[in-house]
Amino acid sequence: MPSPEELRGAIHSYLKSMCDSNIEGIMDLFADEATVEDPVGGAVLSGRETIRAFYAGAAPKLRVELTGPIRVAGSECAWPMLAEFDAGDTSLFIDVIDVMKFDANGKVVSMRAFWNPAETRPTR
Amino acid sequence: MPSPEELRGAIHSYLKSMCDSNIEGIMDLFADEATVEDPVGGAVLSGRETIRAFYAGAAPKLRVELTGPIRVAGSECAWPMLAEFDAGDTSLFIDVIDVMKFDANGKVVSMRAFWNPAETRPTR
Repeated sequence: MPSPEELRGAIHSYLKSMCDSNIEGIMDLFADEATVEDPVGGAVLSGRETIRAFYAGAAPKLRVELTGPIRVAGSECAWPMLAEFDAGDTSLFIDVIDVMKFDANGKVVSMRAFWNPAETRPTR
Repeated sequence: MPSPEELRGAIHSYLKSMCDSNIEGIMDLFADEATVEDPVGGAVLSGRETIRAFYAGAAPKLRVELTGPIRVAGSECAWPMLAEFDAGDTSLFIDVIDVMKFDANGKVVSMRAFWNPAETRPTR
């Protein structure tokens, strides 16, 4: 199983790639059979092309910043963050907790993002 | 489905009951078929008596405090907290993220606690 340091390293890469809109950098972290549920309660995406299209749409509009430590629990991690979403003529803050599950090779097999589309707030 | 306000109310009740070691108050929040995985990656507990015994052992040794907003996502919630664990002659801080899933009646059907037993730290 990957070490906590390796899992945290993958998550820091993910956050940096999100902020840089580095879609290939994001996709390098995911296993082929991965699923993405963002937000939790919405559609569960699967398949590399579907997941790539999701991030290609979302990452350029988002900046994300950790607001607390990454919790490592077995092969899963959870962390709190603040996302800033570019909604065209305005921007929104979103409180998010992400949960990722990793396989034995340290690749992400599921990502679930806990946030409520009805509870965003303007940044200014 | 319960409203975000109702789900947050249940979580605040849970945190208060944890701090008060009010085991019946905790159990009132859980559905009969609930499961508890604390920490994630460990055993998945089920059955009211098993879950009651878990909380009866853990709650008197723990104080918990929110360190950020409760994220509501559909019928699930996630929140970051700091736990202070009484380990006899010392006490430990533990960074935790809890995830709870609720049923249509607002009862908890699963609780998963993300933390690493190898990453606690002394409070002093």
